Amino acid sequence: MLAKNAFSMIKLGLMGLVATTLIACGPEKPVAATNGADAQPQQTYNWKMVTSWPKNFPGLGTAPERFSKMVDDMSAGRLKVKVYGAGELVPALQVFDAVSQGTAEMGHSGAYYWKGKMPAAQFFTTVPFGLTAQEMNGWIYHGGGLELWQELYAPFNLIPLAAGNTGVQMAGWFNKEINSVEDLKGLKMRIPGLGGEVLKRAGGTPVTLPGGELFTSLQTGAIDATEWVGPYNDLAFGLYKAAKYYYYPGWHEPGSMMELTVNKPAFESLPKDLQAIVTTAAKAINADMLAEYTARNNAALTELVDKHGVDLRALPTDVLSKLRELSAEVVAEVAAQDPASQKVYDSYIKYRDGVVKYHAISEQAFINAR
Amino acid sequence: MLAKNAFSMIKLGLMGLVATTLIACGPEKPVAATNGADAQPQQTYNWKMVTSWPKNFPGLGTAPERFSKMVDDMSAGRLKVKVYGAGELVPALQVFDAVSQGTAEMGHSGAYYWKGKMPAAQFFTTVPFGLTAQEMNGWIYHGGGLELWQELYAPFNLIPLAAGNTGVQMAGWFNKEINSVEDLKGLKMRIPGLGGEVLKRAGGTPVTLPGGELFTSLQTGAIDATEWVGPYNDLAFGLYKAAKYYYYPGWHEPGSMMELTVNKPAFESLPKDLQAIVTTAAKAINADMLAEYTARNNAALTELVDKHGVDLRALPTDVLSKLRELSAEVVAEVAAQDPASQKVYDSYIKYRDGVVKYHAISEQAFINAR
Repeated sequence: MLAKNAFSMIKLGLMGLVATTLIACGPEKPVAATNGADAQPQQTYNWKMVTSWPKNFPGLGTAPERFSKMVDDMSAGRLKVKVYGAGELVPALQVFDAVSQGTAEMGHSGAYYWKGKMPAAQFFTTVPFGLTAQEMNGWIYHGGGLELWQELYAPFNLIPLAAGNTGVQMAGWFNKEINSVEDLKGLKMRIPGLGGEVLKRAGGTPVTLPGGELFTSLQTGAIDATEWVGPYNDLAFGLYKAAKYYYYPGWHEPGSMMELTVNKPAFESLPKDLQAIVTTAAKAINADMLAEYTARNNAALTELVDKHGVDLRALPTDVLSKLRELSAEVVAEVAAQDPASQKVYDSYIKYRDGVVKYHAISEQAFINAR
Repeated sequence: MLAKNAFSMIKLGLMGLVATTLIACGPEKPVAATNGADAQPQQTYNWKMVTSWPKNFPGLGTAPERFSKMVDDMSAGRLKVKVYGAGELVPALQVFDAVSQGTAEMGHSGAYYWKGKMPAAQFFTTVPFGLTAQEMNGWIYHGGGLELWQELYAPFNLIPLAAGNTGVQMAGWFNKEINSVEDLKGLKMRIPGLGGEVLKRAGGTPVTLPGGELFTSLQTGAIDATEWVGPYNDLAFGLYKAAKYYYYPGWHEPGSMMELTVNKPAFESLPKDLQAIVTTAAKAINADMLAEYTARNNAALTELVDKHGVDLRALPTDVLSKLRELSAEVVAEVAAQDPASQKVYDSYIKYRDGVVKYHAISEQAFINAR
């Protein structure tokens, strides 16, 4: 009995300490307020960053590592950010909660994974037939997008920052030909966010799975099809071994933006110079990830087609037309479900209409003339 | 006894945990420890940045100001960069020389202005029918471009960094219609870099003038036509008051990258953390300028057309075809003139061929399906 009680007491003690520890090490601890300009000894911060990707996964996983290196270099070692792969500290799809609760000070993930909590979050990753990466950055940094995003995450104790983009993705991996929208009916496909809602409207069954589970799910038949990112990443996961057809273009993810989430009290505990270092490094990796995909995708695609015999296909024009029509309906309906989504949608669509109009005579006109 | 033992066990457990906690959560080095360079009061650096733009000119001029602010914030005031507009300290087109000689520690300009010194420099701004902004960043950061650029500038005591992009520009302002390539014959047009070489091959006379001289030159008839950037900038210069037709797309400048040049000895005199702050802030403004143009161009175009009655025109397809053909010839010939240009050209073209192939099924396929 006593032994049992003692054991219970120890357990309670441990639990209490764990809780205390999280508070003590976490964001709320008052810190020696130095701003780096003076000669006082400066405090060193040791942060954890949880991510939704396998450690060091090309693009998605290398960006957080680069962020950590940049911050370390710029802060002369005063802010150390240790990056954890999916499942190392928390599962891939618990990044948001972990950072919200202060288990980790930072997270790197995609906002559309949190659509169950807030449908509006989906607009901050990508929208079917929506903005490209370049256009998304215009909205985020100079079109009011970032402010709306920060407002949306504030009740969760989180500051979101743009932190990477994949560019236009591929439509995905299929084991049957897609010749009409009928072929999407009954299809169980891994496709998160608003793209998944559109697939549902087309008669399919969307599921959200972390990247690390795709290959096995596809190979065992737990899902019929999957999209992931593009050649550079899809080659790394070996998806070509489990599916025959590789379709383009990624109508559902035309410029998926990744997010860094920062626990708000942790961020606020930093001196101003380290805060600026965090936000600037996020901007740098936001651009750098897109550059990495842009430079690497073609070689990976060539390897998929030439070495692994992947059957590369364009989605038929009428399938794309139908999906575009369904996307407009579905996205507007999602927006109408709650005021936060409506507010974000209104900003997004207004910006989108303008930029698409201008890009018709600039980016699009040029790329078609080239 | 048992109770006491149990209590001791708990205490031991707590102490063990506390120790673990300190190791797990605490600073890796003693809190008071700072990196070697920081043990004494830290040195403050006061730098000058000369630019080729009017002070605070939209996009081109706001990016250097943002760079200065970012660096100030991240360094807690240890590195102050004062930005000078064109002509304030040195003329617009003497930025390269001023930074090379150490008159200023930094410059913000466009590499193609230095084609008289090194033809190869032109590839680091833009190439007719070449890379878009997104593609350019892929080459620079992950395709070997930056290394070639740094090699090219090393003999001049300069470190170049990518520091802004305009996106696809407009073809320019004309007072006569361009219905065939014949209409370009005899045309005296402000058009720098490789685009100017192509105009020369088409029978025109290219001139290089700084932005601040365009309006007067066009209005007085010193030049017949000019290109500058795009609606956001062209509106600011009032070019619509001096020309009738506004042509697109900017075949000659599909993604013009701006440069920060850093005087090499000045850069090397900085502690490592400030060096990292400079290179990371450059990456951030490289992306931020493009975002600003992307977000602002459409409203400016609407104002030009709706309020100022600008006649917006597409260059005819056969004019674009001919210019594409001439561009391929001219760019290859420029490259063949010296080994440095050939080396840069070979890298650029190899990368370009790959990325254009991939973007045909991604960026281009999507934007056309949208």
